[in-house]
Amino acid sequence: MPQPKFARESMTVMTEMVLPNDTNTLNNLMGGRLLHFMDIAAAIAAQKHSNRIVVTASVDNVSFSEPIRLGNIVTMKAQVTRAFSSSMEVFIEVWAEDIPAGIRVSTNSAFYTFVAVDQSGRPIEVPAVIPENDDEKARYESALRRRQLRLVLAGRMNPQDATELREFLRV
Amino acid sequence: MPQPKFARESMTVMTEMVLPNDTNTLNNLMGGRLLHFMDIAAAIAAQKHSNRIVVTASVDNVSFSEPIRLGNIVTMKAQVTRAFSSSMEVFIEVWAEDIPAGIRVSTNSAFYTFVAVDQSGRPIEVPAVIPENDDEKARYESALRRRQLRLVLAGRMNPQDATELREFLRV
Amino acid sequence: MPQPKFARESMTVMTEMVLPNDTNTLNNLMGGRLLHFMDIAAAIAAQKHSNRIVVTASVDNVSFSEPIRLGNIVTMKAQVTRAFSSSMEVFIEVWAEDIPAGIRVSTNSAFYTFVAVDQSGRPIEVPAVIPENDDEKARYESALRRRQLRLVLAGRMNPQDATELREFLRV
Amino acid sequence: MPQPKFARESMTVMTEMVLPNDTNTLNNLMGGRLLHFMDIAAAIAAQKHSNRIVVTASVDNVSFSEPIRLGNIVTMKAQVTRAFSSSMEVFIEVWAEDIPAGIRVSTNSAFYTFVAVDQSGRPIEVPAVIPENDDEKARYESALRRRQLRLVLAGRMNPQDATELREFLRV
Amino acid sequence: MPQPKFARESMTVMTEMVLPNDTNTLNNLMGGRLLHFMDIAAAIAAQKHSNRIVVTASVDNVSFSEPIRLGNIVTMKAQVTRAFSSSMEVFIEVWAEDIPAGIRVSTNSAFYTFVAVDQSGRPIEVPAVIPENDDEKARYESALRRRQLRLVLAGRMNPQDATELREFLRV
Amino acid sequence: MPQPKFARESMTVMTEMVLPNDTNTLNNLMGGRLLHFMDIAAAIAAQKHSNRIVVTASVDNVSFSEPIRLGNIVTMKAQVTRAFSSSMEVFIEVWAEDIPAGIRVSTNSAFYTFVAVDQSGRPIEVPAVIPENDDEKARYESALRRRQLRLVLAGRMNPQDATELREFLRV
Repeated sequence: MPQPKFARESMTVMTEMVLPNDTNTLNNLMGGRLLHFMDIAAAIAAQKHSNRIVVTASVDNVSFSEPIRLGNIVTMKAQVTRAFSSSMEVFIEVWAEDIPAGIRVSTNSAFYTFVAVDQSGRPIEVPAVIPENDDEKARYESALRRRQLRLVLAGRMNPQDATELREFLRV
Repeated sequence: MPQPKFARESMTVMTEMVLPNDTNTLNNLMGGRLLHFMDIAAAIAAQKHSNRIVVTASVDNVSFSEPIRLGNIVTMKAQVTRAFSSSMEVFIEVWAEDIPAGIRVSTNSAFYTFVAVDQSGRPIEVPAVIPENDDEKARYESALRRRQLRLVLAGRMNPQDATELREFLRV
Repeated sequence: MPQPKFARESMTVMTEMVLPNDTNTLNNLMGGRLLHFMDIAAAIAAQKHSNRIVVTASVDNVSFSEPIRLGNIVTMKAQVTRAFSSSMEVFIEVWAEDIPAGIRVSTNSAFYTFVAVDQSGRPIEVPAVIPENDDEKARYESALRRRQLRLVLAGRMNPQDATELREFLRV
Repeated sequence: MPQPKFARESMTVMTEMVLPNDTNTLNNLMGGRLLHFMDIAAAIAAQKHSNRIVVTASVDNVSFSEPIRLGNIVTMKAQVTRAFSSSMEVFIEVWAEDIPAGIRVSTNSAFYTFVAVDQSGRPIEVPAVIPENDDEKARYESALRRRQLRLVLAGRMNPQDATELREFLRV
Repeated sequence: MPQPKFARESMTVMTEMVLPNDTNTLNNLMGGRLLHFMDIAAAIAAQKHSNRIVVTASVDNVSFSEPIRLGNIVTMKAQVTRAFSSSMEVFIEVWAEDIPAGIRVSTNSAFYTFVAVDQSGRPIEVPAVIPENDDEKARYESALRRRQLRLVLAGRMNPQDATELREFLRV
Repeated sequence: MPQPKFARESMTVMTEMVLPNDTNTLNNLMGGRLLHFMDIAAAIAAQKHSNRIVVTASVDNVSFSEPIRLGNIVTMKAQVTRAFSSSMEVFIEVWAEDIPAGIRVSTNSAFYTFVAVDQSGRPIEVPAVIPENDDEKARYESALRRRQLRLVLAGRMNPQDATELREFLRV
């Protein structure tokens, strides 16, 4: 089994400029294009953690609250939160900046999961994640509940058995 | 308030061929690129229902089970399930085909939500959805529960008030 | 020789949203970009009929009557009309929609031909086409005349021998 | 009416390297992508002749005889052949080169037509074309026949009236 | 005149995954594509320093020593070194990583210059740069010499007057 | 050792239309995109001279004086100036045209160097260059000085030994 690694070792920063072909007729970044950017940033973080080829296994619910405009700079920070055998959950935060206007807003965050695979595409075990600061620890803890929600939504876990998720919703 | 419309009136079929730039080093379609395709297909369905410009509001949990290969044909079917004031939920199913090999597999499904907006980007009311067949009716009914889950995950609804969601999870 | 197949079995629907990079300085879809979209849609129909890799052999005269605008939705329907040994003629129709404006126009139609090939690129026989409805039968019949025109234009048939084409032009 | 111009004044040379995303699973340039390249090269020639914005009106029958490979260099030469009021016919020839292998083949030729338009998209008269050498003169003469074929195929001319075309086909 | 800013305030990190269309037939990232990535990263740094729209004024000599492979992760770090009225010099470093192989190499560095402009494209004054650490100070000092070399190469400065440059070459 | 070749045998003309995704928020061609175009044009010239696969080794200082606008036609002319064992220097000139406005300006010129490689990426000797006209001869002569500058800037030559460069700078 591979040596555990710190969460921060997988930190990945990605910056994109919103170009015309990324936008709709209102000159706003299309949601699907942002999901595409986020998937690449998160995949790089998962690669860094596992030193493996990785494939996207799922993306959790993502909300798009703020329009991101043509010419804006999109910054993404991605970091592995927790590993489960061959899969890794990655947390990713997104900011958009209109630099000439001096405006920077937090626009999204999301959890993607990836599976590490070998050259023939077979899943392969990855290092455990060691969270250090409070945010990392909180995301490490809540990863279990999100994993249960994924399994319940995919029909692969009985809601009765999703103890962490049930407790969260009971609050 | 606009005239209600049948769910099937928004039916959109989109077909894409997987090109080299859509793939990772294993020659499989990248998850983020598929999310991008799906967003466009779903947006067209929402446009058809509302006859408005639409912007992506959210995407629910999406799982990627089957690898989709370079040269495969990806077919997406998208249809509005239910409307809530200015927002619409769209159900989208994805199939991948290796036509020379005669293989066609169901790879994904997802729910995207869109908000209809006017030219200045302000939300604007959309028609109600009339489901007809059993699948449409089932998705219409369960839309409420998915909406509650979105609101809970976004921290905009107290889990206690998500009655449909709690019943589903038998919490 | 492979089993004949119905024309409708190859039916392919493809939908594209016109993005900024597809347009000229008048914000209209460039003709060449539309020919590119149509080629992909028609190739998928030819793949479905033959269950083979296919390569474009020719495109017949295509006229562009209506401008298609940035943000419009382009829908293409492609279906094989007739097969000749290893080649297939595909009929493709194009519509453009400005959905918010509630406008949908038929903009083009075209005939593409494809050759089915094996992995080393050698031509390989394809199933015969069985037309069913009147439109399919009419296109099946006229395929011979279009084939003669292609051969005459390519200098590979003497106009004297193009009996179907000559009869058509004599009317 | 604008001053006539020599055919050669519109000569346009365009060179493209075939990149992965331009190719099918056999690593050959897709026909539709080549039609897209050719449209841009031909449009530039029509722009040069008319000093106007131009829109593609039609493309005549194009055959694809030779596969063009990934990494090949595609060279296109486009030149206006004749003008009819606001429309121009452009002749375009295509060569493909595998430079390391020292192989250069003529792969295609085609006739595109363009309409010159003003800023609001209304057709506007263009200069007449003065052919000089024998090739230019031959293409200038035969332009009439190709125009008749386009009109007959578009159902806008009675085959009986297509005198040049009928003579060519010896009908 | 705008308030001086620290060099580090403009620090920009950009990460790109090398996709098939970025590569040549040896599956290596093409030099021109890397120059394109670097220009965007450097432009964002110049935007951050000036809070203005910026346009590329020049790029200094760039050498490409190490091949960067398909699937590699390219990381760029860009930071403004010094400002001259409306222009800014940006230093940019590039690393390439083959993460599964655990290999990370420094591949390039370059100096780009940008001019800050207003909405009509007219040059506009930018803040002075305050270097803090030794590297920043060294780049701040040598910026003058590089500027003289640019001016001499552009024929806009007499080599005799390029005192800093001459001193550097005299060593 | 391969047979020397004339400089003009490598002449390459490339034409590009500036599309929306090539531009910044002022609708001007981004510098990095132009460097990308130029690299491809210059690489083709180097391929023609060497009949080999080539990789970019460096680009010399490039200045961007004139904005190039959306919809403009960019024409590049590239030609090998001189060869040094396995490397070739290519001179490339760029013009931008707003054809409807009848404006054509010289916008840039640059020197790129390429290394010819075999299939495994190892450098391989290329033909010497025979300059014919005065421009070709002048560029052939000055190639030595530019090469010295590249080596000095890369820290691979002592400025004292750069005799051609020192003479040019009258150091």
